[in-house]
Amino acid sequence: MKNRARTGEDSLLEQFRRIEPRSDKVLEVPIGDDAAVWRPTAGCETLLTCDWFVEGTHFFANRHPPESIGSKCLVRAVSDIAAMGGLPRCFLLSLALPLTRTGAWLRKFLQGLRKASRALGCPIAGGDTTRRNEILINITVVGENERGRSVLRSGARPRDAIFVTGRLGEAEYGLRLLERAGKPVDRRDKRLRKHLFPEARLDAGRWLAKHGLATAMMDLSDGLSSDLPRLCKASAVGARIQKQLLPCVAITRLDQHERFDATEFALHGGDDYELLFTVATKNVARIPKALGRLPITRIGEITSQKNIVLAGESGVAEALKNKGWDPFRKA
Amino acid sequence: MKNRARTGEDSLLEQFRRIEPRSDKVLEVPIGDDAAVWRPTAGCETLLTCDWFVEGTHFFANRHPPESIGSKCLVRAVSDIAAMGGLPRCFLLSLALPLTRTGAWLRKFLQGLRKASRALGCPIAGGDTTRRNEILINITVVGENERGRSVLRSGARPRDAIFVTGRLGEAEYGLRLLERAGKPVDRRDKRLRKHLFPEARLDAGRWLAKHGLATAMMDLSDGLSSDLPRLCKASAVGARIQKQLLPCVAITRLDQHERFDATEFALHGGDDYELLFTVATKNVARIPKALGRLPITRIGEITSQKNIVLAGESGVAEALKNKGWDPFRKA
Repeated sequence: MKNRARTGEDSLLEQFRRIEPRSDKVLEVPIGDDAAVWRPTAGCETLLTCDWFVEGTHFFANRHPPESIGSKCLVRAVSDIAAMGGLPRCFLLSLALPLTRTGAWLRKFLQGLRKASRALGCPIAGGDTTRRNEILINITVVGENERGRSVLRSGARPRDAIFVTGRLGEAEYGLRLLERAGKPVDRRDKRLRKHLFPEARLDAGRWLAKHGLATAMMDLSDGLSSDLPRLCKASAVGARIQKQLLPCVAITRLDQHERFDATEFALHGGDDYELLFTVATKNVARIPKALGRLPITRIGEITSQKNIVLAGESGVAEALKNKGWDPFRKA
Repeated sequence: MKNRARTGEDSLLEQFRRIEPRSDKVLEVPIGDDAAVWRPTAGCETLLTCDWFVEGTHFFANRHPPESIGSKCLVRAVSDIAAMGGLPRCFLLSLALPLTRTGAWLRKFLQGLRKASRALGCPIAGGDTTRRNEILINITVVGENERGRSVLRSGARPRDAIFVTGRLGEAEYGLRLLERAGKPVDRRDKRLRKHLFPEARLDAGRWLAKHGLATAMMDLSDGLSSDLPRLCKASAVGARIQKQLLPCVAITRLDQHERFDATEFALHGGDDYELLFTVATKNVARIPKALGRLPITRIGEITSQKNIVLAGESGVAEALKNKGWDPFRKA
């Protein structure tokens, strides 16, 4: 090894510390001691979530730009905080790396992570590193919400309207293009933006929680056909989705020759990190068509049956098959 | 796959939920939603720490009993909370598994984890699972301490006495025996107990923090020769350790024929999770010889030089070489 000191575990943690120097203002004791010390806000409850992001399963080290990996690993974990209507406060990064990734790759990864950390107002609070043949990332995010204001998955009631933010299937579209590329992709390609650099819908989540409008909420990480059943199960309800209402990804003319099905992408594609939420009938009129530039779309309604139904334009309804992402199902 | 439903990600998370059913009393929203909701104690600061525990690096799946892996992954993370003088409140478990480990192995792993969770008063708050060819574990622990009472690594001053809890090198002794075993070990073998089922020194850490006696503190996870330099660096001081004062592991007569060096184990062996702490001269008399059944031993003193020195019985002093555990150094 050429430079022992620079690749040691302590040196890696030293690099973590520089992700967000302003963390000293948020934390009593930032990264570097046995544990970080953080002072919770009076009157708030703490939100806790953790997320795997690992090579081969969630990204390909030879295709995904390191900046994308650094940004996305944090954004997708923060998305769980957005889904509760909360605000992110700080995060912990566990990183396992091959020695070959401790140089330029790590620098770009940390650049992406730093940019996301600043944009989200979520500084690093701690971390752990170890060596591994593949890149493994685990992120824990600590968030906050005013007491009792967190929006759960379990509050949906029959006749509630079902809404989503943004467009669905955009990340899947990017993933398909990336899979076909066979080489590192151009991270400025707009068709790949949602896949490479998703956003956490913090403002929308906050707005809905603040006004008490969402009866239930979650983020779409594994795809509508996987995630909607989870919300329904937690609420002990069913759902009826109108196919023609789905705000599907726009496939550009360039790719019209491909057999891309925008509706399939919208139903089963993962990684969009849009919010899925339900609203009581009496409040539906209070939901705007957009929050800022983010479209809000009504896609169906909650039912008292325990199944998930997809209704077509002709009125014919079929069961919505769960074809979203589950690492333990895809054998 | 024989039983699709039972091995799906949701089913695994369902099993996590049963680790500590009483978690509902600690958490406003336990595992199962986008994020867990936890209410911090008024007047307390929050402690945050995360830890890798991965196959091949930290344990061997074909040697270590699953109950040991389940217990140790939590205890070692909680040890960081003990090292701050705090109390653990809840933890998050990220687990990556091969399909072959989702049956009996997982059940025993969760048994070990549940036992540790109860003993430590630290219920599960959340988790994430994914599939992997090897077992990967990441644990985040959330702890608390009265505001301003957390003991950092940075408070040691020249002439402070250096203490450790327990006996050092016991875990290394167990590891060596395990490495020689060549087969799954008997988890009741007392020589392996410290390696397989270490304890977090929560009571000692709390007592020291409560009485304001420790100027600096950390836990010994990588070995004295790796960890003491970290405490010294954070405090901008040096240290002088008296070799003959080290409370070394007792090698049983059975193993006297082996070339085991108890002092080497005590200096460089990792995984003991004992506390290393410093005490101002005026308070040294207040430190008892033991806390309950846990011995407390003075092993040296902090110096104003910036080096770490090991003094022998003859009075001859040598530099203490850092030979402890660093996954990025051992190439």
